[in-house]
Amino acid sequence: MALYVQKYGGTSVGTIERIQAVAEKVKKFRDQGHEIVVTVSAMSGETNRLIALASEMQDVPSPREMDVLLSTGEQVTIALMSMALENLGLKVKSYTGSQVRILTDNVHMKARIEDIDVAKIRADLDDGSVVVVAGFQGADKDGNITTLGRGGSDTTGVALAAALKADECQIYTDVDGVYTTDPRVVEGAQRLEEITFEEMLEMASLGSKILQIRSVEFAGKYKVPLRVLSSFEEGPGTLITIEDDENVEKPVISGIAFNRDEAKLTVMGVPDIPGVASKILGPISEANIEVDMILQNIAEDQTTDFTFTVHRNDFDKAHQILTRTSQLLKAREVKGDNKIAKVSIVGVGMRSHAGVATKMFDALADENINIQMISTSEIKVSVVMAEKYLELAVRSLHSAFELGRNDSISE
Amino acid sequence: MALYVQKYGGTSVGTIERIQAVAEKVKKFRDQGHEIVVTVSAMSGETNRLIALASEMQDVPSPREMDVLLSTGEQVTIALMSMALENLGLKVKSYTGSQVRILTDNVHMKARIEDIDVAKIRADLDDGSVVVVAGFQGADKDGNITTLGRGGSDTTGVALAAALKADECQIYTDVDGVYTTDPRVVEGAQRLEEITFEEMLEMASLGSKILQIRSVEFAGKYKVPLRVLSSFEEGPGTLITIEDDENVEKPVISGIAFNRDEAKLTVMGVPDIPGVASKILGPISEANIEVDMILQNIAEDQTTDFTFTVHRNDFDKAHQILTRTSQLLKAREVKGDNKIAKVSIVGVGMRSHAGVATKMFDALADENINIQMISTSEIKVSVVMAEKYLELAVRSLHSAFELGRNDSISE
Repeated sequence: MALYVQKYGGTSVGTIERIQAVAEKVKKFRDQGHEIVVTVSAMSGETNRLIALASEMQDVPSPREMDVLLSTGEQVTIALMSMALENLGLKVKSYTGSQVRILTDNVHMKARIEDIDVAKIRADLDDGSVVVVAGFQGADKDGNITTLGRGGSDTTGVALAAALKADECQIYTDVDGVYTTDPRVVEGAQRLEEITFEEMLEMASLGSKILQIRSVEFAGKYKVPLRVLSSFEEGPGTLITIEDDENVEKPVISGIAFNRDEAKLTVMGVPDIPGVASKILGPISEANIEVDMILQNIAEDQTTDFTFTVHRNDFDKAHQILTRTSQLLKAREVKGDNKIAKVSIVGVGMRSHAGVATKMFDALADENINIQMISTSEIKVSVVMAEKYLELAVRSLHSAFELGRNDSISE
Repeated sequence: MALYVQKYGGTSVGTIERIQAVAEKVKKFRDQGHEIVVTVSAMSGETNRLIALASEMQDVPSPREMDVLLSTGEQVTIALMSMALENLGLKVKSYTGSQVRILTDNVHMKARIEDIDVAKIRADLDDGSVVVVAGFQGADKDGNITTLGRGGSDTTGVALAAALKADECQIYTDVDGVYTTDPRVVEGAQRLEEITFEEMLEMASLGSKILQIRSVEFAGKYKVPLRVLSSFEEGPGTLITIEDDENVEKPVISGIAFNRDEAKLTVMGVPDIPGVASKILGPISEANIEVDMILQNIAEDQTTDFTFTVHRNDFDKAHQILTRTSQLLKAREVKGDNKIAKVSIVGVGMRSHAGVATKMFDALADENINIQMISTSEIKVSVVMAEKYLELAVRSLHSAFELGRNDSISE
């Protein structure tokens, strides 16, 4: 007898038949005596349909009204999901974010959850009901409808699990767990039984798009056991755990993440004076461009080369801004490259193991892959390279760190 | 400087372009200095789309969840309408029924409004905003979403106007007012400048489907001036007024209503004992069949003939029930006719004018139309006839009571 919060994304509830399949799944858990809170996204395609309506109406839609509009997507799903559960003879009650209520700040379209009043949900569970909650949405203190931004349904699931002190928050997706790397790139990629929150955060932010980063942060902060599993196949999925210090058997590296949506910009020959970094990056962030890696080299003639990476979509805009800045700073020139990719090795084990980075660089050198930038954190090492080497790099690292099913045999 | 509540139905907000056209209309009123509260239906087709989804899911959809589902329709419209108004430079704020809040009883799918808290709306109006409220929906005292049933947006409009003490509730539809009869049947049918609530009630319940009956009752009860006008054309529409006793110049007859969805059932030779009417009609109303006209004749041999009309859709079901009842009551036989129609003359003026019914019967007799049933109220006379005579009857009555543009000349 456990309490599970189960989150089903847009693909899992994309059609009437799929909603019915989810209801069958929920019924199995109920039949085993578990208490179930279901949180759902909008049916796949619905959010895009609504966004299209809004953009026909306004070039820049009013954020408040956009939230009123978008929140209808999950509201449709909770009603249909409740009907499907009722059809199977289950007691059920649905709630919108406002009804629960899921209290958020008032930042429309990317609100943050501040509090959840679980009294109604708790009473319904005690009454034997399955509770169905609209994901992605809440209301601010004045009752205005808010949304949490794309992927926010994961956050709703985790926040509900935290507030209800659930035994597990189960995120049902179209993949059956977290893999050592993308199985489309490395055939021998393996599903991980467990991964720590910190590793998952690094994996997620580096492009393994299974979970919304904020939901993982949230789960880590409130110590909610989080499990990623498939809506369509049976299986245990991957459990995302709080790191256990005693567990010395942890592998050094848990996975290889990568990201090809990167672009690199360099200002060459900037006078090396205090505050030059903020002079360069200030205008970039004012334009709402997110900067990822930052690198500064001291050159010989009291000038410096300053390099950073941005999302590839922001490359042209960042290049323009940087060209203006470089004239102001009397820099020598601006260089750009939008054909780069980032590959990272991630693992909490590397904290206690020296030489992990060296092993990575060796493996890449063996393949004659030139490393353009390096960035490290406690549990990851990222390198930037020409995009054309991406697959080769991922495969050789996956093999070097023996992550695959057959690697240990083949070596 | 007046306060208007304006209701726009599904056809008026059926496309992005139409919503924009409504916004332009609202802006004109704002530019003249009026305060405007807009209430809207779901975009035409949307409610049917949602109902189709629900009926794919459940044969008899859960009423509570049906309301959660259907209420998204108007929520989409308020968001889009608000965006359109904002585009024109107006300040605007949208509210769902729950947000206002429009408090209803807990009868899902046909809830009744109990109270409206206008504090937020009043504050927004004072702040110079146009307020856009979702029609058709509210919330019960526990915060469950409710809907008012089809056509309920009219009721929302009237209830808002009553609560806000608005100067007028304007119902925008696809017709430009209330006519003396259906212009498709009588070419010379005329738009009425004014009609009383009572007349409108009789016209509405008799098949002039411009306004939901409940909204007219509501408007009469709270003395809200109600105006029906076109979303698509300019014009004053028809004002539905509180009857003014001093206005002795009222025409005797305001309009001719008709209804072809009728069916007639007769039990012949029922023993004429006390309580026979309730024995016959009890089982009918238990089957949720609404009975319209009722007629009882005393026959010679201490038996009676009992006739009533029902909606044509209910004819078969009513016939079955009646056959069983007639066996129990040892009646002679049951007769039915589902090819009948009802035609009514309506007007507050007939109260003070004798001979109106006679004039009606004469006009019908002149055309050799046989009257099967007669029913009268203070302000209307209804007759049932074979359906084939419907158009002829309406035209001859329209002419006899000089309701048309050319009638006074042609006569």
